[in-house]
Amino acid sequence: MRAHQLQVEEALELVLPAATLAPARLHEAMRYAVLGGGKRIRPLLSFAAGEVVQAPPRSVALAAAAVELIHAYSLVHDDLPCMDDDVLRRGKPTCHVAYDEATAVLVGDSLQSLAFQVLAGHEVTPDPGTRVEMVRHLAVAAGSRGMAGGQAIDLQSTGMELSVPALEFMHVHKTGALIRAAVLLGAACGSTLDSDSTAHLDRYAKFAGLAFQVVDDLLDVQADTATLGKTAGKDAAQHKSTYVSVLGIARARELAEDLRAEALRAIEPLGPSARRLRDLTDFIVVRTH
Amino acid sequence: MRAHQLQVEEALELVLPAATLAPARLHEAMRYAVLGGGKRIRPLLSFAAGEVVQAPPRSVALAAAAVELIHAYSLVHDDLPCMDDDVLRRGKPTCHVAYDEATAVLVGDSLQSLAFQVLAGHEVTPDPGTRVEMVRHLAVAAGSRGMAGGQAIDLQSTGMELSVPALEFMHVHKTGALIRAAVLLGAACGSTLDSDSTAHLDRYAKFAGLAFQVVDDLLDVQADTATLGKTAGKDAAQHKSTYVSVLGIARARELAEDLRAEALRAIEPLGPSARRLRDLTDFIVVRTH
Repeated sequence: MRAHQLQVEEALELVLPAATLAPARLHEAMRYAVLGGGKRIRPLLSFAAGEVVQAPPRSVALAAAAVELIHAYSLVHDDLPCMDDDVLRRGKPTCHVAYDEATAVLVGDSLQSLAFQVLAGHEVTPDPGTRVEMVRHLAVAAGSRGMAGGQAIDLQSTGMELSVPALEFMHVHKTGALIRAAVLLGAACGSTLDSDSTAHLDRYAKFAGLAFQVVDDLLDVQADTATLGKTAGKDAAQHKSTYVSVLGIARARELAEDLRAEALRAIEPLGPSARRLRDLTDFIVVRTH
Repeated sequence: MRAHQLQVEEALELVLPAATLAPARLHEAMRYAVLGGGKRIRPLLSFAAGEVVQAPPRSVALAAAAVELIHAYSLVHDDLPCMDDDVLRRGKPTCHVAYDEATAVLVGDSLQSLAFQVLAGHEVTPDPGTRVEMVRHLAVAAGSRGMAGGQAIDLQSTGMELSVPALEFMHVHKTGALIRAAVLLGAACGSTLDSDSTAHLDRYAKFAGLAFQVVDDLLDVQADTATLGKTAGKDAAQHKSTYVSVLGIARARELAEDLRAEALRAIEPLGPSARRLRDLTDFIVVRTH
């Protein structure tokens, strides 16, 4: 897992413009927002899915970097004063605190463009049809029917008491869509999967994504700010519905376990090639930050 | 020209999610920011360049729509209070005034994703290699080495007295990169151009883009808010260097004419196929808003 984290770190370092290139302040801020932090869960999922299809690690690292650039941009924008208004992220001041709001907006915008630039490059995989399909998939996952739409639903729902299906609808968009893209892009880097196997991976990604979110909600109340690297207790302070506020800690923990079991069941047919996806599921559910 | 404007309007209408789809408020705001306004200069350039290579209008309309989505997103973000802080755009309240700041951030983010989703779709052109090349080109033009980078340079330069080369450096990024992309994407929809013809088009786009900007600076001091559909006199109020503040009105007008002549010279070798590009150059320079 550490090896994969290093590979995606290297890929990110490679694709991000140097901080010495003009406009230097923007490039410095882009690197600040992306490098040297984060659990890199989405890239790890790409690598694990890539192993199912014997994908070349170099391809997966670039596809995973593209997904992580989208994730990093979303964090920068979500932390803005007009959004979740947060000052701490990955143990450091958020981008608009370290720089300024205008720069943070442009950092997010530029990271999104860079993600598609990376996917369109022939280094990812020689077949242009695969690359353009990756672009399409990531664009849908990032946009108004995916991640950005989920954030809109989240903002609209703040202060409201959501039902469990409404919470799930929000998270399937806000975090689920990109986690699904991470898995499917990793798998797209290797030998072509039959539609059954793709459906297994997709089902896995759905449950793993929801498990990730339930654990996130648990950690928000159970861990401290120093461990999380972001402000703890934020959901309650902002009157957001979470799996914990709706179900309570004990039932939320049970739900996380159920989702883990569903995720593992989804990839049973893939046999030993899905070993690393299994390990990752455990990592997602037992993590402490 | 009117026919082309209608075709891109139809394409935009088609690719934007319906305002009834969840999240409805976000989709409504995306449509508000894009539809029913704007000169559609970039799409017109795509159509004109497409005519050089007998490109199918249906392909060009989608490629042009992708470029216009990027342009529309940039206006929404540039108008934010932390950026240029403007309340009027295309004769209507800006997106964050009509909705709210958080929605405006997400509208811009979602429009950018949508642009790449559109370009990745097989409806643009059957050849995936061409589509992925279009994605790469638009991503570079939109990102930190293009449009977003130009906006960063603009914000950093506010209050400073820029030289003409520094102004040009800013505008080649801020508006030039996307105008270049509009021309090259339009041309990519048709029969393959030899590298000489591509270079002619690229040179044309550079001069036409700068001419567009010089005229923009002139209109900011010479036209009124009602005609412009955006706040007139803003550059001086915000202490921004412009071609007018640096050169004065008479010399800025001369520069616009020189740039028009250079643009026309660049496409002379393309003969009658570039007729519409010639017409557009005149439109760019003599426009009143």
